[in-house]
Amino acid sequence: MSKSVLILPGDGIGPEIVTEAKRVLELVNQQDKLGLVFSEALVGGAAIDADGVPLPPATLAAAQSADAILLGAVGGPKWDTIPDFQIRPEKGLLGIRSNLQLFGNLRPAILYPQLAHASSLKPEIVAGLDILIVRELTGGIYFGKPRGIREKEGGIREGYNTYVYDENEIRRIGRVAFEAARQRGKRLCSVDKANVLEVTVLWREIMEELAKDYPDVELSHMYVDNAAMQLVRAPKQFDVVVTGNMFGDILSDAAAMLTGSIGMLPSASLDENGKGMYEPCHGSAPDIAGQGKANPLATILSAAMMLRYSLNAGATADRIEAAVSRVLDQNVRTADIMSEGMQQVSTSEMGDAVVAAL
Amino acid sequence: MSKSVLILPGDGIGPEIVTEAKRVLELVNQQDKLGLVFSEALVGGAAIDADGVPLPPATLAAAQSADAILLGAVGGPKWDTIPDFQIRPEKGLLGIRSNLQLFGNLRPAILYPQLAHASSLKPEIVAGLDILIVRELTGGIYFGKPRGIREKEGGIREGYNTYVYDENEIRRIGRVAFEAARQRGKRLCSVDKANVLEVTVLWREIMEELAKDYPDVELSHMYVDNAAMQLVRAPKQFDVVVTGNMFGDILSDAAAMLTGSIGMLPSASLDENGKGMYEPCHGSAPDIAGQGKANPLATILSAAMMLRYSLNAGATADRIEAAVSRVLDQNVRTADIMSEGMQQVSTSEMGDAVVAAL
Ligand SMILES: CC(C)[C@H](C(=O)O)[C@@H](O)C(=O)O
Ligand SMILES: CC(C)[C@H](C(=O)O)[C@@H](O)C(=O)O
Repeated sequence: MSKSVLILPGDGIGPEIVTEAKRVLELVNQQDKLGLVFSEALVGGAAIDADGVPLPPATLAAAQSADAILLGAVGGPKWDTIPDFQIRPEKGLLGIRSNLQLFGNLRPAILYPQLAHASSLKPEIVAGLDILIVRELTGGIYFGKPRGIREKEGGIREGYNTYVYDENEIRRIGRVAFEAARQRGKRLCSVDKANVLEVTVLWREIMEELAKDYPDVELSHMYVDNAAMQLVRAPKQFDVVVTGNMFGDILSDAAAMLTGSIGMLPSASLDENGKGMYEPCHGSAPDIAGQGKANPLATILSAAMMLRYSLNAGATADRIEAAVSRVLDQNVRTADIMSEGMQQVSTSEMGDAVVAAL
Repeated sequence: MSKSVLILPGDGIGPEIVTEAKRVLELVNQQDKLGLVFSEALVGGAAIDADGVPLPPATLAAAQSADAILLGAVGGPKWDTIPDFQIRPEKGLLGIRSNLQLFGNLRPAILYPQLAHASSLKPEIVAGLDILIVRELTGGIYFGKPRGIREKEGGIREGYNTYVYDENEIRRIGRVAFEAARQRGKRLCSVDKANVLEVTVLWREIMEELAKDYPDVELSHMYVDNAAMQLVRAPKQFDVVVTGNMFGDILSDAAAMLTGSIGMLPSASLDENGKGMYEPCHGSAPDIAGQGKANPLATILSAAMMLRYSLNAGATADRIEAAVSRVLDQNVRTADIMSEGMQQVSTSEMGDAVVAAL
């Protein structure tokens, strides 16, 4: 039985890195007889250029019917000044997340031993780092209404957004996080601002309620400002972290940067049934787009996550991850993770190395 | 002409650290004939215990009539489980900020050369670090309405808060930040999430508009997720950062922790006329309260900021800061900044050392 994979190259370095991930996927598809069928569509700035909107109906339909989606990255200065706030590359990404209800965003922050020196933190603080941030992805202030910019009395304008979660939204992301913690170190830290924001008072209450179903998982709570500090001070204290969309955006990027090698970090965004979109944690890096400098490993590792979580091919995922590790052992490095004594390679040469290792 | 200083010890380690700061203030008051008159009031958990509310009317009145306010810290687990969300220590702090319209929060993140080793970051990443975070403190999602927890159709509860800023609120904090940048490295980075949140689209627009009045200051913009990463990756790229209340809460704590010595960092919260409340960046640390372990230097340095910004005694502020630096040179350390070969002292002994150095 064949399975369909939709590839969305997107903007900036997106097309380059996705090309390498696709080569890897095509290879393992043959080797392991996975029956994957690939198609491609436009999203983000590329879609704005071609069709005038960041998420063309054909792309959304393709995303809905695919078994899994691999995304490069969206966005760039070229589209930042479009006056209509709905015509932004990011809206394409947010539209897929929301329409497909990909609420469960898994963002691992793992320090590869071969890249330990790349971190801006002291080695003893980050050696062996392995955190999983579980971010709610289809609710919270990203999607809350009312929202906009309006005129008050006196002609003064004000901008406003709404941070809202209902019990069910909190419960379903909470379950994803508790399940993940159960598979790992059995510790879950829920991050909120329950001393100030009512919406997170409810968040905390529901997490407490869920904890009764997971007696084997130790639940703790932390305010978001403290969490940002603790990530800098002693990140290894965390196992799984669960939080809302906005705090998750901030904390997952900080956590990723602790490793010093954000070009290595994949992510998964899953719906209730395990269907998902997979993308690197880094962005579209327009400054180096088209120059063959980008690191394709985060996208290749995202493809591995896709095989594991959405395509029932865990063994193949393991093979890809092992191949990436071997390539690092061979001292092959793209510019972002380059260091003395290593061999610097281009995006496609890094793809070659992973293909060879497979 | 005498000037009135209201002292609010608050909770946890608040009373201990404020005691040392007050000794320093009393000494310089005599030495430099500043004419300061001190009074004290309850706020936070201490006020809940005594009066049932976190901000008793007498405390608010005293704060309104004082020329400047020195606060220890508020909060602790003892009061976290009070069912009424209005009866929380934090509401005392927020109530003073809001009632006195102390919208301009200045949070310096400075690495003391004597404490360079204390950082969890590599020395070359943080050596010489000197960032000023300007946080809006009386608006945004902290105070936005509507807010609460309500039942939707079907009996499902939802929590909601409102992130709102009007042009005038943005403009006044923007001016504080541009003025501060003008006094320093002349670079201002405004942090928002203008690719997702309309309220920060307006924020960015007003910052651009203000930039025309400050041609000598270089304005840049950064998304909050990227700012969290850049603080970890290369914090010295920043001079002054300006942002809203919630993002400022998170980023200022992360920035403070980069120094590894948050027990050293003061803050100021100013109104339109330079009247202000001054407090250490760290919290009430209930776990070490009453044990004489707390570092009083952040509070002593907050007192120095108070003298400079609200009490027109800049020369005295300079003297206090120089005394603190001398104490560090003498290798005297509280537990939080202790390292090998240094002399560990208690809260009051650290106060003694500063008094002696003055
Ligand atoms: C591009 C942007 C809308 C997006 C987000 O904020 O969610 C990105 O930062 C991310 O974290 O995936
Ligand atoms: C205690 C709390 C309400 C407060 C805040 O969030 O503003 C504190 O974290 C701070 O940063 O001063």
